[in-house]
Amino acid sequence: VLPGDIATATIGLLGGTGDQGRGLARRLAAAGHSVVLGSREPERAVAAANELRARRTHLDIRGDSNAAAAQSASVVIVAVPYAGHRELLTALAAELAGKLVIDCVNPTLFERGKPPSMIAVPEGSAAEEAAAVLPESTVVSAFHDVSAKLLLSSKRSIATDVLVCGDDAEANEWVCELAGRIRGMRGVNVGPLQLSNTLESLTLVLIGVNKRYKARSGVRITGI
Amino acid sequence: VLPGDIATATIGLLGGTGDQGRGLARRLAAAGHSVVLGSREPERAVAAANELRARRTHLDIRGDSNAAAAQSASVVIVAVPYAGHRELLTALAAELAGKLVIDCVNPTLFERGKPPSMIAVPEGSAAEEAAAVLPESTVVSAFHDVSAKLLLSSKRSIATDVLVCGDDAEANEWVCELAGRIRGMRGVNVGPLQLSNTLESLTLVLIGVNKRYKARSGVRITGI
Repeated sequence: VLPGDIATATIGLLGGTGDQGRGLARRLAAAGHSVVLGSREPERAVAAANELRARRTHLDIRGDSNAAAAQSASVVIVAVPYAGHRELLTALAAELAGKLVIDCVNPTLFERGKPPSMIAVPEGSAAEEAAAVLPESTVVSAFHDVSAKLLLSSKRSIATDVLVCGDDAEANEWVCELAGRIRGMRGVNVGPLQLSNTLESLTLVLIGVNKRYKARSGVRITGI
Repeated sequence: VLPGDIATATIGLLGGTGDQGRGLARRLAAAGHSVVLGSREPERAVAAANELRARRTHLDIRGDSNAAAAQSASVVIVAVPYAGHRELLTALAAELAGKLVIDCVNPTLFERGKPPSMIAVPEGSAAEEAAAVLPESTVVSAFHDVSAKLLLSSKRSIATDVLVCGDDAEANEWVCELAGRIRGMRGVNVGPLQLSNTLESLTLVLIGVNKRYKARSGVRITGI
């Protein structure tokens, strides 16, 4: 299921027009990958891809439907809002079969006047939900703790670790390597997919830090 | 409820004979604090305190019952195994009333042949359970992500952030400052007590990293 040569892997981004999707697209394209932004409305994905390319003409980014992005890529990153997560993946199960699927969705709930909280996912986490509805795919959870604002910023290097978990050790290592291709980042394989709930909720911790310290924070694992 | 001068605060450690308790006791005593190790069996606490002092005679550490440790200290750290957490705190509610209570308990479950997992706590986390049974105390959650082995090691400095959460902003800052008194550590206030579940489960992530990378890992927040 792993794409052979990591350097030439084409990457599809479901929900690619959001901040996280465009940010990852830009950074991965800057690392030399062909990227296909997907959206429910293909014209919005085309527009987002054009906008990213307008600033950096050498980037290989194009837009299409979510289904086409899933089909044409060898690795697919899921970056949709949690509200549409289960439905979209269920609909694309055939396109995603036999592929490596990287889920970076955070099931976070923002309500006025309350601190952000996590939406309870029956499977335990968004990534485990993805694994449940995509039995023919290899699901890895990653990129939850990477600030979309930093990804889209003008910073040339983003000093953060990308925490990775999943039940296929080789796929985890592959995703760690992919993360390491983004300047400043390091992938860290933390273990089985059941840890995804922690990786997803770590986002709330970083949001809390950002608020208190007026920062765009990230995480580093020390001692390794 | 905050002890006035942080430098002269006496620290009680409930469940002080475990690795986490002895490790924190040693590091906090090395930072100049008087520490009272508490245990259900006071003679075990006395023996643990004597052993810590045998290696570093200048440390001000003594042992006593959990109740006496709670009573004689101005700040109390809870480091018992989760199995006895609710019961102990319920029994000591009077001794802990009006005090700052720092909960560093991780409700982790280790079963043979399975990856470690979290025990579901009705209140959401061990620290929220503490807050529920200690309505007269100020509960702050901290030190979950600090390796007991590192605390007990011969390393003079431990490069890690201590993630702190709680519903009393001043108490959070106080605990951040206390953490910063341990060499190499920095306290980071991440927000409300409801984030404690994430801080507690982060331990599983670090256990996973330790296993995969043969390391004693910690966490740093970048960007602040």
